[in-house]
Amino acid sequence: MFRPQIAPRGWNSWDCYGAAVTEKEVRQNAEFMASHLKQYGWEYVVVDIQWYEPGATTHEYRPFADLCMDEYGRLLPAPNRFPSAADGKGFAPLAEYVHSLGLKFGIHIMRGIPRHAVHKDLPVFGTDRTARDAARFNSICMWNPDMYGVKDNGTGRAYYDSIFKLYASWGVDFIKCDDICRELPHEEKEMIMLSESLNSCGREMVLSLSPGPALLEKAELYKQLANMWRITDDFWDDWKLLYAMFERAEKWSIHAGAGHFPDADMLPIGPIKQDYDKDNKSAFTVDEQITMMTLWSIMRSPLMIGGEMTRFDDFTLKLVTNEAVLKMHAHSRNARQIFRREIDGNEYILWAADDCDSGKYIAVFNAGGEDGTLEFSMDELEEIPADSKATELWSGESVTIGSIFKTGLPAHGAKAFYIG
Amino acid sequence: MFRPQIAPRGWNSWDCYGAAVTEKEVRQNAEFMASHLKQYGWEYVVVDIQWYEPGATTHEYRPFADLCMDEYGRLLPAPNRFPSAADGKGFAPLAEYVHSLGLKFGIHIMRGIPRHAVHKDLPVFGTDRTARDAARFNSICMWNPDMYGVKDNGTGRAYYDSIFKLYASWGVDFIKCDDICRELPHEEKEMIMLSESLNSCGREMVLSLSPGPALLEKAELYKQLANMWRITDDFWDDWKLLYAMFERAEKWSIHAGAGHFPDADMLPIGPIKQDYDKDNKSAFTVDEQITMMTLWSIMRSPLMIGGEMTRFDDFTLKLVTNEAVLKMHAHSRNARQIFRREIDGNEYILWAADDCDSGKYIAVFNAGGEDGTLEFSMDELEEIPADSKATELWSGESVTIGSIFKTGLPAHGAKAFYIG
Amino acid sequence: MFRPQIAPRGWNSWDCYGAAVTEKEVRQNAEFMASHLKQYGWEYVVVDIQWYEPGATTHEYRPFADLCMDEYGRLLPAPNRFPSAADGKGFAPLAEYVHSLGLKFGIHIMRGIPRHAVHKDLPVFGTDRTARDAARFNSICMWNPDMYGVKDNGTGRAYYDSIFKLYASWGVDFIKCDDICRELPHEEKEMIMLSESLNSCGREMVLSLSPGPALLEKAELYKQLANMWRITDDFWDDWKLLYAMFERAEKWSIHAGAGHFPDADMLPIGPIKQDYDKDNKSAFTVDEQITMMTLWSIMRSPLMIGGEMTRFDDFTLKLVTNEAVLKMHAHSRNARQIFRREIDGNEYILWAADDCDSGKYIAVFNAGGEDGTLEFSMDELEEIPADSKATELWSGESVTIGSIFKTGLPAHGAKAFYIG
Amino acid sequence: MFRPQIAPRGWNSWDCYGAAVTEKEVRQNAEFMASHLKQYGWEYVVVDIQWYEPGATTHEYRPFADLCMDEYGRLLPAPNRFPSAADGKGFAPLAEYVHSLGLKFGIHIMRGIPRHAVHKDLPVFGTDRTARDAARFNSICMWNPDMYGVKDNGTGRAYYDSIFKLYASWGVDFIKCDDICRELPHEEKEMIMLSESLNSCGREMVLSLSPGPALLEKAELYKQLANMWRITDDFWDDWKLLYAMFERAEKWSIHAGAGHFPDADMLPIGPIKQDYDKDNKSAFTVDEQITMMTLWSIMRSPLMIGGEMTRFDDFTLKLVTNEAVLKMHAHSRNARQIFRREIDGNEYILWAADDCDSGKYIAVFNAGGEDGTLEFSMDELEEIPADSKATELWSGESVTIGSIFKTGLPAHGAKAFYIG
Repeated sequence: MFRPQIAPRGWNSWDCYGAAVTEKEVRQNAEFMASHLKQYGWEYVVVDIQWYEPGATTHEYRPFADLCMDEYGRLLPAPNRFPSAADGKGFAPLAEYVHSLGLKFGIHIMRGIPRHAVHKDLPVFGTDRTARDAARFNSICMWNPDMYGVKDNGTGRAYYDSIFKLYASWGVDFIKCDDICRELPHEEKEMIMLSESLNSCGREMVLSLSPGPALLEKAELYKQLANMWRITDDFWDDWKLLYAMFERAEKWSIHAGAGHFPDADMLPIGPIKQDYDKDNKSAFTVDEQITMMTLWSIMRSPLMIGGEMTRFDDFTLKLVTNEAVLKMHAHSRNARQIFRREIDGNEYILWAADDCDSGKYIAVFNAGGEDGTLEFSMDELEEIPADSKATELWSGESVTIGSIFKTGLPAHGAKAFYIG
Repeated sequence: MFRPQIAPRGWNSWDCYGAAVTEKEVRQNAEFMASHLKQYGWEYVVVDIQWYEPGATTHEYRPFADLCMDEYGRLLPAPNRFPSAADGKGFAPLAEYVHSLGLKFGIHIMRGIPRHAVHKDLPVFGTDRTARDAARFNSICMWNPDMYGVKDNGTGRAYYDSIFKLYASWGVDFIKCDDICRELPHEEKEMIMLSESLNSCGREMVLSLSPGPALLEKAELYKQLANMWRITDDFWDDWKLLYAMFERAEKWSIHAGAGHFPDADMLPIGPIKQDYDKDNKSAFTVDEQITMMTLWSIMRSPLMIGGEMTRFDDFTLKLVTNEAVLKMHAHSRNARQIFRREIDGNEYILWAADDCDSGKYIAVFNAGGEDGTLEFSMDELEEIPADSKATELWSGESVTIGSIFKTGLPAHGAKAFYIG
Repeated sequence: MFRPQIAPRGWNSWDCYGAAVTEKEVRQNAEFMASHLKQYGWEYVVVDIQWYEPGATTHEYRPFADLCMDEYGRLLPAPNRFPSAADGKGFAPLAEYVHSLGLKFGIHIMRGIPRHAVHKDLPVFGTDRTARDAARFNSICMWNPDMYGVKDNGTGRAYYDSIFKLYASWGVDFIKCDDICRELPHEEKEMIMLSESLNSCGREMVLSLSPGPALLEKAELYKQLANMWRITDDFWDDWKLLYAMFERAEKWSIHAGAGHFPDADMLPIGPIKQDYDKDNKSAFTVDEQITMMTLWSIMRSPLMIGGEMTRFDDFTLKLVTNEAVLKMHAHSRNARQIFRREIDGNEYILWAADDCDSGKYIAVFNAGGEDGTLEFSMDELEEIPADSKATELWSGESVTIGSIFKTGLPAHGAKAFYIG
Repeated sequence: MFRPQIAPRGWNSWDCYGAAVTEKEVRQNAEFMASHLKQYGWEYVVVDIQWYEPGATTHEYRPFADLCMDEYGRLLPAPNRFPSAADGKGFAPLAEYVHSLGLKFGIHIMRGIPRHAVHKDLPVFGTDRTARDAARFNSICMWNPDMYGVKDNGTGRAYYDSIFKLYASWGVDFIKCDDICRELPHEEKEMIMLSESLNSCGREMVLSLSPGPALLEKAELYKQLANMWRITDDFWDDWKLLYAMFERAEKWSIHAGAGHFPDADMLPIGPIKQDYDKDNKSAFTVDEQITMMTLWSIMRSPLMIGGEMTRFDDFTLKLVTNEAVLKMHAHSRNARQIFRREIDGNEYILWAADDCDSGKYIAVFNAGGEDGTLEFSMDELEEIPADSKATELWSGESVTIGSIFKTGLPAHGAKAFYIG
C-alpha cells in the first residue's frame, strides 16, 4: 500500500465549485499550483463529486439524473464539462496534463454502483453477471442519489476491480471515496473490499475516506485500509466548526503517522462557493485562518485547499506558502494537546509536538472571543529546557523562553513556535 | 372515513404463500370462507405482497426483479400468477368473483412508487410530470426492493390518487399498506398523504398499516388515519412472540374502538409456509392457539387467518368458528389487563372487559410452562357481584363465581368467561 | 389489606404548612372538615413530614437536627408543636380528637430508621439488637436528612413492626410513606417489608406511597402493596405541572380500582405556603382548578386538599363540595383518554368513563391558551347512543347530545357530563 | 504544587492487608523496601484505608463502627493496631521511622468528615462551628460507611485545613484520597476544595485520587489538582482486568507527564489478601506480571506494590528491580499505542515512546491465549531507522532490527526494547 510520510497537500474543487466544476477550472487551478505552490510541496489536484453528471450546476444533486457511464456501468466524465474526456477517453487527457505540470491527479467517487446501471441491468466488466448481482437494494447514500452499495461477493469485487483498473489506466493518483467513512460498522465489509480492490489495481493511489466523523473505535481499521479519513462532517468557514475541531484533533492526533492521517477536511479559504456567486469568499478572519493552518499542520492533517486559487489575495497565498509552517506539517511527530484552560474568560489551548529531525514545536491558541495573554509555567512541558531559543513560525521572530511562557494572542488567533 | 364497529375478520395469503400466492389459491380460500366461515362474520380475502412480481416463488424477494406495471408506473397483477388479470384487467375479475361469494376483497401495497418506474422515468397519470418528480431518492424500505418513498408534493399526491382510483375501479375493499407503520415519525407526511388520497378515491376501503411495532406516542394519529395498525413485528407460531404480545396488548388496548383497532397480526394456524413445504403447519399447541384467539378477541384485534383454510383440521376450524368467542370479539369494550401475577412459579394474566350490550368478560391466561391453578379474590374486580353466573366460552360450561375465583389452566392455556 | 372502594379524600398539611404544621392548625382544619366537608365524603386529616422536628419552621429541613424519639429510636411528635403529645402520649390524643369529629387521622413517615438512632446505637424494640443492625449505611434520602434505609433482616423487620404497632396504638388510620415510591427497583425489598409489617400491625391503615413519579412497569407491585402511590413529583399550582398530568393520567388510569389508586398528588387550592406568608394562595385560575378537580375525579385519583381550609373562599369551598363531581369520583370505572387533538390551535382532550351503577361520564378539557369550541362526532365514542340526555356536572345544566358533540370551553378549562 | 517528574513508586497495604494492616506489617515492609528496593527508586510506604478503625480485620468495613478520632472529629490511628500512635501522637512516630529509613510515608483518607463527628456535633478545629455545618447530609460513599461529604463553605474548608495541617505535623508525604475520583462532576467542588486545602498545608505531599475509572473529559482538572488519579476500578490479579487496561491506557497515556500521572492501580504481586489466608498469592502468571510491569512502565503509571514484600520470591523481586525497565518508567515520554492487531488468532499490541534523553522505546504484547510471533513492517513506526540496534529490557539481549520487526511472544506475555 502507498504510504506517504507527509500528509497529502493539494487542491479540491468542492468548496469553490460543488458538483459543477469544469475542466477549464481544474486546469487553471493546476496551472496556478504548478507556478506558485508546487515548490512548497503542494501536489494533488482533485476533481470532486459528480464529474459524471452533465447537468450539475451547483453544490446540489439532481435526483435520478441520467449520468455518463460506459456499457459496464462505469461512470465517465461528462464531456460537456470535461471536453478532453470525449470519445471515451475519460480523465486520461486531463491527468496527463496535470502530470505534465509536475503534479498529481485525483478524483472523487461515491461508494457503490450506479443505480441506473442496476435498473438497466448492465453487465459487470469481466463477468457474466450484471449490476443487479452486485448491488445491495437496501444500501444507499442518504444525501446523494447516484449509487447502490455493493455486495461483498464475486460480482461486487469484479465491479470495484473494473473501476479502479479504469482509473489506473487514466493515470489517477488519488481517490476520495465518499459515503463510506462514518458509515461503519454498517459498511465495513464494503470499505475493506474497496480498499483491497484499489490496492490491487496496479497503480499507487492515495485513498481518502469521507465523510466524517469517523468512528474513533475503528481507528486501526482506517489506518490499515486508507491514507486519510475525515474526522468531521463537512467543514466550512464558520468559527463554531473550527472551534469544535480542537476536540476532534485531541482524540485523533495519536493516530497520525506512517502514511495514514486523520483528516480535518478542506481549507475553505479565498474565493469559495463560486457556483453560486463569484463574490463569495471565506468568512474566516485572518486570525481564524492562522488558527486553522496551525492546528491542521501540527496535527498532520492533510491540507487540501478549497478556494479558487487563481484569485487568492496576498494574505491567502502567504497562508499556504509559509515554509516554516509547512515544515512543521512535514516534520511534526507525536503531536498532542497539553491543556485547554480558561484564563480571564478566554479559553487557551496548548499543543506540543516533536520535530522528526530535532527540536520541538508548540502551538498556542486563543479560542476565546477577546484578545488576551496566555501565561503558563514551562514546567508543564517536560523536555523543554528553560531559556530555550524559539522562533515563531508565522512572524519569523526569535524569542527566548524562560521558566514562564507568556505571549499575547488575538481573539480566535494562534502562534506556533519551533524550539531547538 | 370507513369506520367498522367490529374489527375486520378475514384471510390473508402471507402466512401460507408468502410473496408467491396464485389466483387459484386465493379462489379456493375465498370459496372455503364463503362456505364455512362467512356465517360467523368472516369476510375479507386479502392478497398479500408482490402480486405484481411474476417470478416470486417463496417468502423472499428478488432484488431488482422486473415488475408488472402499466405505462404510468402503477403495478398490475402478474398474469402468470393471476390469469384473470390478463389484458390489463387487474384484480377486477378476481374482486368480482370474491364479491359474488358475498365476501370482500383486499390487496397489499408497499408505501411508495416503483423504483423501476422512476429509473425508466415513466409519466405519472393525470400530470405532465414523471415518477422522478414524485420519488424521494433516500426513502427506501430496508427489507423489500420494490419502491421509493413518495414526496409530499403535487406529483406525489397525483401518483397516490392514481393508484387508489385504479384499485377502486377494480372493486378493492381493503388496503394493507406496508413499510409505513413503525416508520413514523420519519414517514409521517407520506402516511397522512396516502390516507387522504385513499379516502378521496370514491370507494370505502379498510386501511391497514404495517409492519409494527407502531409507536405508542402516535396512537392518536393512527386512529385518525387508519382502521388498523400493527402493534408488533411479524407474528409467527412461536410462544415467545405470543407471550410478548401480552405486554403490547396491555399498552394498546385503550386505543381499540370506533373503527380503529390495534392489530396483533395474523393468526398463523393450520397449514402455513406452503411455498416451502406442503407439510408445514402451525407449531402452536392447541392451548397456545386458544390463548391467542382469546387475547386477540378480548382486545378487539383484527382477526386475519394466515393458514391454508381448505386443509384446516377440525380443531382449527372450531377455533375460528366459536360463536361465543366471536361475540366477545364483537362486543368487547374497554378491555384492560387487571394483573400479571406469579403463583407457584407460573405467571397468570387476568383481563376484563365490558360487553357492549350488558355483562362482563374476563379472560384468564396461564403464561407459565406448567399446568396450574389460578386463584384470586373477586374483590380485585370491581363491578362483578359475588355469586355471579358465568359461562366459559370455549367449553360452554356454566359456573357460579363466588368471592374467590379459582380455575385450573393448562400451560400456555386460557379460558374466557361471560358474566351477566 | 384494607381496600377502600373510593379513593381517599382528605386534607394534608404539606401545601400550607410544610414541615412546620402545629397541632392548633391540624385541629382547626379537622374541625372545618367535620363541619363543612364531612357530609361530602371527606374524611382523612393527615399530618405531613417532620412532626418530630422541634425546630421546623418552613418547607425546608435542618440537616442533622435533633429529633424527638423514644428510647427505641421511634420518632415522636415534638411537644412544642403538638402539646397533646407531651409525656410520651404521641399522636394518641390528637387522633382521638379527630376520631371524635367523625374523621380519620393520618401521618407522614420517611422510609427508614433515624440516623441519630443509628449513631447513638439505640436498641430496637423487642430485640437484643440495635439500630446499627437494622440500618443500611448507603441507603439515604437525597432530599431529607433524617433516616437510613432499613435492611431486609430480622432487626429491620422488628423496627418496622415496632413503629407500626406504636402508630396503631395511637389510632392512626393513614400512613403516607415517603422516599419509597420512585426509588424502585432499588428499594423494592424495603417497600415490600414495610407493607407487610404495616399489614400485620393489627389496625386497618391506608398506605400511601411517595414521592413520584412511580414506575409504570411496577404498577402491579404498587397495587399489591399499597392503596395509593404518587404518579408525579410534587405537584404545585403551576399550569405546566397540571398540563403534564394528562399524559401521566392516560398511562396510569388503567391501574385505578379495587382499593388501589394512582395518586396525582394534593390539590394546591386556597391559602397555601402559609409558613412563608399568610397572603400566599393558589396561583391556579378558577378554570384550572375545575380542570384539576375534573381530571382527578374521573381518573379516581385520591383527593387530598392542600390549602388552609378555614380560610377557603366561596369558590374553593364549592370546588370541593360539588356532589355531582364527587359522585363521578366515587362511581367512575374504566376511565380512559379517548383523544388529544388540536383544533384551531388549541389542544382538546377527551376522557370517558363508566358509572358503576349505570350511565357514562365524559370529561372535556381545553388545554390550549385560548377560549375555544370542541366539536367531534359521537361516533368516536362507542356505546353512547345518539340523542342522549346529559348533565354538565359543574353547572348542573341539562343538554341533549346529538350526533355531533359541540361545546365551548375556556382556556385551561373543563366540563364533565353524566350521560344516562 | 508538588510536581514529581517520575511517577511515584512505593508499597501500599491494601492488596495484602485490606482495612486491617498493623504497624508491625507496615514497618517490616518499610524495612524491606529500604534494604532491597530503595536503590531502584522505590520510596513511598502507604497505609491504606481505615487505620482509624480498631475493629477492622479484613478487606470489609463494619457499618457504623466507632472510630478513633480527636475532639475535633479528626481521625486518629487506632492504637491497638498502631501502638506508636498512643497518647494522641498519631502517625508521627511511624512517619519518623519511615523517614529514618530514607523513605517517604503516606496514608489513605476518605473524602469527607466522619458521620459520627457530625451526629455527635463535634466542633471543627479553629472555628466556632460544628461538623454539622460542614457536612452534606446527602453526600455519602456507596461502599464505605465512615464519612459525609463536605460543603464548599467556610466550615468545610476549615475542616479540610485542620486535617491536612495535622497530617503535615505528622510528616505525611503522600495522601491517597478515596471516593472522589470517579464521582465527578458531582463531587467536583469538594475535590477542588480538598486539593487547595492540601496545597496550603505547608508540606509537600503527593495527592493520589481514587477510585476509578476517572472521567476522561475531566483530564485537565485532575492534572491541575492532583499528581495521580485512578483510571480504573480496583485492579486485581485477573487477566480480564489486565487486558482491559490496554484500552484505558491508550486513552489516558497522553495525559501523563510533568508531575501528573494516570494511575493504573497497584501491582497485585507476591503474597496478597493476607488478612484472609497467609497462603494467598497473586494469581497472575509470570508472563502476565511482565506484561503488567511493561505497560505500567511505558505509560508512566505510578508503581505501587500491593503484595507483602518480605515474602517475595526471587521472580517477584526481580520483577520490581529491573533497572532497564525502571529506567523506561522514569524516561518514557509521549507513550502511545501504535496498533492492536489480530495475527493468526492472537491479538498483538504495540506501544512506542521516546526516551527523554535520547532513543526510543517500543513494547510488544501478546494479548492472545496462545504463544505466537508478532511481525510488522518498521515503516509503521516513523523515526526509527532501519537496522537499529536494540536491547530487550527484561532479558538484556541485544538485537538488530531490520525492516521487519519479528519476535516470539508467549501467551499474555510482553517484551520491551530500547532503541538508540
